Amino acid sequence: MSLTLISPDAVKCAEYIFSRLYSLGIRSVFGVPGDYNLRLLDFVEPAGLHWVGNCNELNAAYAADGYSRINGISALITTFGVGELSAVNGIAGAYAEEAPIVHIVGTPARSLQDRRVFMHHTLATGDYRQFAAVHQQITAAQVNLVDPQTAPDQIDWVLQEALFHQRPVYIEVPDDMVDALVSTDNMKKKPVLSVPHVPEAQHEAAIVERVLGRLNAAKRPAILLDGETRGMRILDLVEELSKRTMWPTWTTIFGKGLIDESMYNVYGIFQGKYAPESWNEYFQTADLILHFGPHLSDTNSFGFSAVPRENVTIAISQHTVSVDGVLFRDLPPRRVMSKILSSLQPLKLGAQGPSHHPPPTVDLDKSLPLTQKHFYHYINSIFNQGDIILAETGTAAHGSRQFKLPPKSRLLTAVTWLSIGYMVPAALGAALAQREILGCSDNRKDGAPGKERVVLFVGDGSLQMTVQEISTMMKEGLNITIIILNNNGYTIERAIHGRKQRYNDIASWNNAHILPMLGQQSSNLESFPQARTWGELEAIIQSGKLTLGTGVGIIEVFFDQEDCEGSLREMLNEQIRKGN
Amino acid sequence: MSLTLISPDAVKCAEYIFSRLYSLGIRSVFGVPGDYNLRLLDFVEPAGLHWVGNCNELNAAYAADGYSRINGISALITTFGVGELSAVNGIAGAYAEEAPIVHIVGTPARSLQDRRVFMHHTLATGDYRQFAAVHQQITAAQVNLVDPQTAPDQIDWVLQEALFHQRPVYIEVPDDMVDALVSTDNMKKKPVLSVPHVPEAQHEAAIVERVLGRLNAAKRPAILLDGETRGMRILDLVEELSKRTMWPTWTTIFGKGLIDESMYNVYGIFQGKYAPESWNEYFQTADLILHFGPHLSDTNSFGFSAVPRENVTIAISQHTVSVDGVLFRDLPPRRVMSKILSSLQPLKLGAQGPSHHPPPTVDLDKSLPLTQKHFYHYINSIFNQGDIILAETGTAAHGSRQFKLPPKSRLLTAVTWLSIGYMVPAALGAALAQREILGCSDNRKDGAPGKERVVLFVGDGSLQMTVQEISTMMKEGLNITIIILNNNGYTIERAIHGRKQRYNDIASWNNAHILPMLGQQSSNLESFPQARTWGELEAIIQSGKLTLGTGVGIIEVFFDQEDCEGSLREMLNEQIRKGN
Repeated sequence: MSLTLISPDAVKCAEYIFSRLYSLGIRSVFGVPGDYNLRLLDFVEPAGLHWVGNCNELNAAYAADGYSRINGISALITTFGVGELSAVNGIAGAYAEEAPIVHIVGTPARSLQDRRVFMHHTLATGDYRQFAAVHQQITAAQVNLVDPQTAPDQIDWVLQEALFHQRPVYIEVPDDMVDALVSTDNMKKKPVLSVPHVPEAQHEAAIVERVLGRLNAAKRPAILLDGETRGMRILDLVEELSKRTMWPTWTTIFGKGLIDESMYNVYGIFQGKYAPESWNEYFQTADLILHFGPHLSDTNSFGFSAVPRENVTIAISQHTVSVDGVLFRDLPPRRVMSKILSSLQPLKLGAQGPSHHPPPTVDLDKSLPLTQKHFYHYINSIFNQGDIILAETGTAAHGSRQFKLPPKSRLLTAVTWLSIGYMVPAALGAALAQREILGCSDNRKDGAPGKERVVLFVGDGSLQMTVQEISTMMKEGLNITIIILNNNGYTIERAIHGRKQRYNDIASWNNAHILPMLGQQSSNLESFPQARTWGELEAIIQSGKLTLGTGVGIIEVFFDQEDCEGSLREMLNEQIRKGN
Repeated sequence: MSLTLISPDAVKCAEYIFSRLYSLGIRSVFGVPGDYNLRLLDFVEPAGLHWVGNCNELNAAYAADGYSRINGISALITTFGVGELSAVNGIAGAYAEEAPIVHIVGTPARSLQDRRVFMHHTLATGDYRQFAAVHQQITAAQVNLVDPQTAPDQIDWVLQEALFHQRPVYIEVPDDMVDALVSTDNMKKKPVLSVPHVPEAQHEAAIVERVLGRLNAAKRPAILLDGETRGMRILDLVEELSKRTMWPTWTTIFGKGLIDESMYNVYGIFQGKYAPESWNEYFQTADLILHFGPHLSDTNSFGFSAVPRENVTIAISQHTVSVDGVLFRDLPPRRVMSKILSSLQPLKLGAQGPSHHPPPTVDLDKSLPLTQKHFYHYINSIFNQGDIILAETGTAAHGSRQFKLPPKSRLLTAVTWLSIGYMVPAALGAALAQREILGCSDNRKDGAPGKERVVLFVGDGSLQMTVQEISTMMKEGLNITIIILNNNGYTIERAIHGRKQRYNDIASWNNAHILPMLGQQSSNLESFPQARTWGELEAIIQSGKLTLGTGVGIIEVFFDQEDCEGSLREMLNEQIRKGN
């Protein structure tokens, strides 16, 4: 290999990295400083990126995940060993649920690594590859920048992998590589990285034809929009298809919020065995189910009961198209979808969908305690167009399936990873992305309009995991409404097993002190809004405490510790029957 | 292999595990409940073990580490994926600094794993081995209990590995293995696991002879006690050696608190290039340095300047004895040390050590602000015999090197892993172990007397990482005094790099709200003890707020954000010189 000459317009390696992140649309970078990343951090803000210092690295990873789901991609910087390993669970969740995060780790200088010196933040084994081996399990691609000659290509490759696989990637930057000069040739050739162009495969035309044939022949069709569609860059085309065909359209839990729910033919989440009978009947007798971005975990498919029958399904994912169970590869989804839409015959609007099932209107006695059964319909009234709503794993996530989302709003909720503690930092990340998108039109990803506002529903147990990150929300001056669902411990676990067991209890907190402790200037503990009854909740809503533009606000609502619905209720009842 | 018959006195697999943990002296188990460990948790308390529900899994791992360092071994239970991966950084720290933790993970039922079902808490790849692969990097041994026939041997083996290597180990328990019956044969044969007996190696007598020869001939000897001695079960013998020889004895940072510092010949930490000149001169001209439990990281050896010269050193570690640079293996340290002590000639008390360097007595003007330079000597007066003192990574750890520890007290401080956030949960774990040891004489490990009390020094930045675990301290009714060193951000990082950079700032908290928020019943925000001057600190000490028996107490002391000493001061000055 010949030596690459440093061109006069070379840049420092750190400048190259952050310039690439900027061109991908990243504006905020999450993380925590540490001994081996300080010099790297010097280059963040000069690159036009905003540094978000988090309280700890797991929170930072969760926040980067939330940012990624709204912005499309995110970045996280940690330090070798102690920092990166704290982030592991957050990165793994982003892997499981397809949120690309560029995880950049500042590592000891190459000379220390080569000599296997027993530095701090190592396991004192002399092996500097152990933490990369950990990240190999939970990221789509990894690079270790040990040579300025190859660094630019390595960086571009790993970023492209993140975009293509929609998964986290891992970049190690030794301390002495931060200001090593690297060539800017790549930056001149490809100003912004994007999904690479793929020549049309020989079978592409035939597959598109086959899919079109099935579409045009369908008598009882349905669309099922799942969450992996988010990274496939076809959400606009799926919505167009749904609008043009008016075919009955459902989402999965993961797909909820990815299509305008105000469209008449959009029904909400298809809940499999828990769905209304008419929906289930339609689904079971459909002769075509167009399934976009399938993500077939137990929790995203109601114990697999919402998985469509293979022999009537055309499933389009990032890497494959499956027609009635036969898999085809190398068909870029956006090109396939564009061809389908351009060739689709004017369809008879004959696909008569099942009836809608709006929640029954219930008169709630103001003096009665709040219940999970009615809470989500009730609180739904506070949502505005463009809101980002997050519902943490637990009863909140179960309840959020009932939300009717306003246009342009988004929902982040429990899908497959279900790591409690995730949603508080994810709300921070989502809110930052939302603010950037609304504030900067040339950076806008999905045209979400309206004022910025994030609404977070979180249980009392989950809250305790990552509560400190609320201070970062305040530091950043974000508008986030936090609704704490206090049901005295891990109710979801009580439903599964150990209904009366002490291990499902948590420490008793006084949540009125959260904001005063974490940064609120003027604290009035007495005015902390709490609701145990419908009347109290109504008063809080009417007081305007849940409206936007007021920074970080918390309200606390109380439920009985065994109050749960749907599948959770079934499990709990089963335990009661057994005398547990 | 023939089928093992289930004997009539078989026990459930979970009962076997917890019975073994009990027999190892474990009384408290840390962790968080999750979908795949609930059935396992049913067996914790019936086995006589106390379940400590933590706020999150990283905190639980840190707490298990602190418990292990006092008790000798500890246990942690997490759930598959989300739980175990949150604990990774804590487990890695225990690996680096030799604290055995038995990490038990509840995993999905075998049938789900065999069929590669896309369950929640997986990466939805069908691969159930990815998290075990992560733990392979950070634990000494791993077992997956998938067969009742082999489970007892697997469990015994992995526990023995934990004890022998003094490192964490990893046990996967599939949900359907929890109540699978296993044989109790092992329990009858070996009621308590211990270090296995090793027959005497052929070279053992010769090596002992050689070591004795060097000891008897030494004219200018020194003892250097390092931290890995803790797990070698020879602390009593090292102290005996030091007492009988009266040889000048130093510790490393890691070894501090492992020998009675009230002995005249015990000097404290040998700080290498930062040591008093007379100490350094003695060390550099010594003709014998007995080095116990070497742990040669940069941070534990003052940038390697405190590492003794190989050609005069006899180093005794768990797995090797090194004589003047020549390594010998397979010499169990306790047997070797016993032989040495029993054959040691009455020594001339001729080893004239260097002079002591007690801290100069300084009159501190009450109106002047607190300084790192004098704070640690000043606060030293509050320590009692038997206290466990923890000093978190940062200026607190640096300052704690100056402490003069009372007899029977212990110090946990930054050694090699240096993960900020560690010390708050570690204090919880250490306090639980201390209470058990004091309360239960037949479980006493080192005879520590006196009332229970833990004192924690933690910086404002570190505190934000894991603050919620203070609620578990309160839930457990422990006596822990927390001294928050508030220097407005990451001062240790400012010293290293980025003195004025925003990334070394943290969110501004009002720490008066911590206890009221996390569980204190009666809160009086006005009486929250804070000190900015020596006079204010004196008043707090005189008020008795730092005495024991009063549950969890917090005081906050303030320092200038650039106030640091020793090596940190040197680094900061270097930055100032450069104009940073």
